[in-house]
Amino acid sequence: MPSGEDDSANETSGEERLIGRYFRPLATTPGAFALGDDAAVLTPPPGCDLVLSTDGVIAGVHFLAEDPPDSIARKALRMNLSDLAAKGATPVGFLLSIALPAETQDSWVAAFAAGLGQDIAYYACPLLGGDTDRTPGPLSVSIAAFGTVPHGGMVRRATAKPGNIIAVTGTIGDAALGVLLHLDASLAERWQLSVASRTHLRDRYLLPQPRNVLAEALRHNASAAMDVSDGLVGDLAKLCRASGVAAEIDVASVPLSDAAREALSADAKLIERILTGGDDYEILAALSPANFSAFRAAAAQAGVAVTQIGQVTSGQGVLFRRDGKVLSFARPAYTHF
Amino acid sequence: MPSGEDDSANETSGEERLIGRYFRPLATTPGAFALGDDAAVLTPPPGCDLVLSTDGVIAGVHFLAEDPPDSIARKALRMNLSDLAAKGATPVGFLLSIALPAETQDSWVAAFAAGLGQDIAYYACPLLGGDTDRTPGPLSVSIAAFGTVPHGGMVRRATAKPGNIIAVTGTIGDAALGVLLHLDASLAERWQLSVASRTHLRDRYLLPQPRNVLAEALRHNASAAMDVSDGLVGDLAKLCRASGVAAEIDVASVPLSDAAREALSADAKLIERILTGGDDYEILAALSPANFSAFRAAAAQAGVAVTQIGQVTSGQGVLFRRDGKVLSFARPAYTHF
Repeated sequence: MPSGEDDSANETSGEERLIGRYFRPLATTPGAFALGDDAAVLTPPPGCDLVLSTDGVIAGVHFLAEDPPDSIARKALRMNLSDLAAKGATPVGFLLSIALPAETQDSWVAAFAAGLGQDIAYYACPLLGGDTDRTPGPLSVSIAAFGTVPHGGMVRRATAKPGNIIAVTGTIGDAALGVLLHLDASLAERWQLSVASRTHLRDRYLLPQPRNVLAEALRHNASAAMDVSDGLVGDLAKLCRASGVAAEIDVASVPLSDAAREALSADAKLIERILTGGDDYEILAALSPANFSAFRAAAAQAGVAVTQIGQVTSGQGVLFRRDGKVLSFARPAYTHF
Repeated sequence: MPSGEDDSANETSGEERLIGRYFRPLATTPGAFALGDDAAVLTPPPGCDLVLSTDGVIAGVHFLAEDPPDSIARKALRMNLSDLAAKGATPVGFLLSIALPAETQDSWVAAFAAGLGQDIAYYACPLLGGDTDRTPGPLSVSIAAFGTVPHGGMVRRATAKPGNIIAVTGTIGDAALGVLLHLDASLAERWQLSVASRTHLRDRYLLPQPRNVLAEALRHNASAAMDVSDGLVGDLAKLCRASGVAAEIDVASVPLSDAAREALSADAKLIERILTGGDDYEILAALSPANFSAFRAAAAQAGVAVTQIGQVTSGQGVLFRRDGKVLSFARPAYTHF
């Protein structure tokens, strides 16, 4: 099972045919050798560190088998791009491992590859190599993505300091509501959502918007950061534990989209889902007050909202306060274990 | 799904518990941040290229679910190390993605991690990060491994030249016979194998012996190389197609172990299985005659046999000759498509 296979005129297996037809056209960077070697080559810029992320999706666990194949591809890549963004890294390429059930149609693979190709171009993150297998199980996609930072410049998770402002980009909870809608369309009525709001929430589930445009500003300003993938509550707890600090969050400050506000006013209990549901792919950062202002200004220039939601304190634990009361959560973070 | 999770005193999910208990102790290199960040950091040595390989295994496709977990782990890593070896690269680390069925026992994960730890130490290839998921499907392991070569020094597959000697390391066909034995123990009687031979063949299936010790000698001497993972016949065809050359192989020269010779003398038809069965993880190289001698001498110093099995010619196609006749193969290469 090499990283890639030969030219399409000499296909000797279904694997080579799929790779040749759908994935080779995406592997245009010289170091990918058109997927025709055992490995790829990446020449890191002098003075840089490589930042390495790996994340994958499995049908029935992270997405629905009937989701659009182009959005499955793009989401799998964007989950990794979001990790790179939160670390302040500039994407330089990725490896793709895909396991396909025997019944997978060529048209599915074609649409998957087309979606991937769009994001390869949009994020300037070339396909370097991969591995394609048949599986008796569900379709799965695993990506290892690589970025660069100036040596020593990766934004850590473990370096938040008491006194830091806690900020998030964009809005929280949309994808978590979007997947509920995607599973049960009748919720749109119950939540009294406009058509635009339904579309917004569903789109945020299908297609994350990683904040790679903020990588440099994060590197210059953040004390610590991570992306919000498993829910704000659980991920902030991780950041605080890793940093040996505590945090207080003002729930009323957590930025919500108009669509999430509509849903929340129809069902106040959705606040837990919004804060813990995950798949946000926004950035959670801890910054000194001066750096927070600089970061927010840089983000505004890039068209991304940044909102202060609380502050880092000494001690341990994270308090989410609303109307003077501390919220508790039945299921603080997304986990499929 | 971050690259890793927090400290074991604060486990909030089964995923974190597994990672904390079994995988964090393996992640001792500083850039892995004890699996406690979203990403890992790798500082490439100045003047080096990174060589990137990805390869995975799925239960029921590439191994049997009841195979020993330590050997599954080691084989998954060694398949990637073999790619790095064939490219002349020195391993510098890897990312691990593992999808576990719900019924996976902790004892299985413990044995898997113990096997991985042995090879991390033996090959000096640190665990940098990973991704752990539950799957409704079969257990699967995907690894992305990284090596370094001096800039421009990766040994390519596409650069074999007419006049080159074709050589292989070690012996061919052992793992392909080993998996047959593993599936049907009665073959040992039919093939009249000694106990030592049974053990040898089975071990070669369970635990490849990648030739990383030869990486530097390959870099200095080989015109082109790849590892033999999908069978000598199919892989040599790939190397020749990629290089735009042809090859002639003397089947009598293909190095066989004593065990494979025993099996072959009991059943002459096994020659096809030996030449096409795959899982050899030996190195197939094309070298000028002068470089072949130097490579063979360096390999002998490292305790690895290198055997000339044929030569590169101009044109296209690969001929396997035995007793003056050209062999043809029903199934030239391993493929599960």
